[in-house]
Amino acid sequence: MSKLVIVGTVAFDAVETPFGKTDKILGGSASYIGFSAAQFDVDSAIVSVVGGDFPQNYLDLFSKRNIDISSIEVIKEGKTFFWSGRYHNDMNSRDTLVTELNVLENFQPIVPNTYKDAKVLVLGNLHPIVQSSVLDQMKNDSTLVILDTMNFWMDHALSDLLDVIKRVDVITINDEEARQLTGEHSLVAAAKKIHTMGPEYVVIKKGEHGALLFNHSNVFSAPGLPLESVFDPTGAGDTFAGGFAGFLAQTENITFENMKKAVIYGSTMASFCVEKFGTDRLESLQPNEIRSRLKAFKELTQFEIELTS
Amino acid sequence: MSKLVIVGTVAFDAVETPFGKTDKILGGSASYIGFSAAQFDVDSAIVSVVGGDFPQNYLDLFSKRNIDISSIEVIKEGKTFFWSGRYHNDMNSRDTLVTELNVLENFQPIVPNTYKDAKVLVLGNLHPIVQSSVLDQMKNDSTLVILDTMNFWMDHALSDLLDVIKRVDVITINDEEARQLTGEHSLVAAAKKIHTMGPEYVVIKKGEHGALLFNHSNVFSAPGLPLESVFDPTGAGDTFAGGFAGFLAQTENITFENMKKAVIYGSTMASFCVEKFGTDRLESLQPNEIRSRLKAFKELTQFEIELTS
Repeated sequence: MSKLVIVGTVAFDAVETPFGKTDKILGGSASYIGFSAAQFDVDSAIVSVVGGDFPQNYLDLFSKRNIDISSIEVIKEGKTFFWSGRYHNDMNSRDTLVTELNVLENFQPIVPNTYKDAKVLVLGNLHPIVQSSVLDQMKNDSTLVILDTMNFWMDHALSDLLDVIKRVDVITINDEEARQLTGEHSLVAAAKKIHTMGPEYVVIKKGEHGALLFNHSNVFSAPGLPLESVFDPTGAGDTFAGGFAGFLAQTENITFENMKKAVIYGSTMASFCVEKFGTDRLESLQPNEIRSRLKAFKELTQFEIELTS
Repeated sequence: MSKLVIVGTVAFDAVETPFGKTDKILGGSASYIGFSAAQFDVDSAIVSVVGGDFPQNYLDLFSKRNIDISSIEVIKEGKTFFWSGRYHNDMNSRDTLVTELNVLENFQPIVPNTYKDAKVLVLGNLHPIVQSSVLDQMKNDSTLVILDTMNFWMDHALSDLLDVIKRVDVITINDEEARQLTGEHSLVAAAKKIHTMGPEYVVIKKGEHGALLFNHSNVFSAPGLPLESVFDPTGAGDTFAGGFAGFLAQTENITFENMKKAVIYGSTMASFCVEKFGTDRLESLQPNEIRSRLKAFKELTQFEIELTS
């Protein structure tokens, strides 16, 4: 089986939406990416750090999904990264209420030897210097590197961010972030500029409007699955990245045609994520549910128009 | 050939975008719908009103596209409806600078006898009472009626609007208007509510994000064609409606599968509309250009995922 290595946060989240609020629950970019990728036939490992306050039963959830957690460092005397946010009524924007970096502050990820030649590496949202330090450890030029980042690093560490962007194959970024990074309003123009920064593939996530995939000569559009209610959008972007990466690792096929399928798998996984608080929905997800949702994506998007020339 | 009748405004527009500004140019909902529908094999007629200031060469543009203009009433002593607007930098919002109703104020549309059994009727944006008076004149229960409207009528004539919505088969409406009409943020929930108001088919236009088509049991999503620059969005929604209606009239096939294609044709036509000011791009459009853009829509959206069950 292909190997997939995921570097990112494993954290506590507390979330408030119009539908309710949670106490501290399992969160973090690597958690969402991991649970999502675990739906594919891959050997995956999470590289992260937690504090002594992190419950063993959360770690067991990863193990149960066959995710290698031996590189989740536990700092006994430290506290786990904590994020808290409140969503506005439209669910498209949120306020951050609390960010406690805790053990994340001095996080120095160490990629296990057995994963240094992984087929796919996902660099979840972290300081770009930390993301670069992971790249320095990889041993196989053919590893597909997928980078996720956010506007915070554009504001506070732009030059470090540009350094890591230069070194990756795929970047996943949301529409407002793509505009901020490039100064271009048009997403087509933004993607072109991002190509010149390094990545051959650019995935622009548009929330409820889906995602766009660009390489130098092609573009593909996946819609968001129209949902009657979005319960909690936290982690949807990471879940997308996990499905995208998991499918690519499983199929070991890095062509635009296969990337299109990966975007659909990513969108499918994200559509589940938002149905419940936190990682709840992903933890219980069954293959037949994924199959029936893929069918819904086909019905939603496929049409027959014959063109004679 | 199938008959298509279009009721709406034929007007002067003056538009300002970040790319430039126009003097008074040809505008109006019926103009955009007409030029767009004229790309299909249909007999179409526009029912509208203009003033004595309306240039003959604008009328000739319709005739050249084989659009029947005998029901565009010319009120010699009156002035043509005039709208002027300025787009913001993001092109997604605009301010109305001037609205002079002029001859539109007392417009009483008269559907020509030969079009009272038309296969398709498009009710372009107008006062809902005027739209209803057109429905009263139609003679064939199997005419497919497509209604376009806007938030102005929700604010100022809601009960008249609900009366006409009750009587139509298809409503095309933008996302914010769908939310305003129903009080539902989710577009799925909004479409459900609009179904209960009458229309069997609901098309929600999302600007650059494309369009959603709903009936009681299905949903279809068409993306907007990702464009490097949008020159002038005026009339894009009407152009969509014209392509949608023109294709349905030409094919005489009112099934969900065929409506999906109609949405793609509508989106294709709208993608041309925004490339130049006003109706310029639509006037010069050639069939091979449409064919190659349909091909782009297929490449943008189609993927191959085999599902075993």
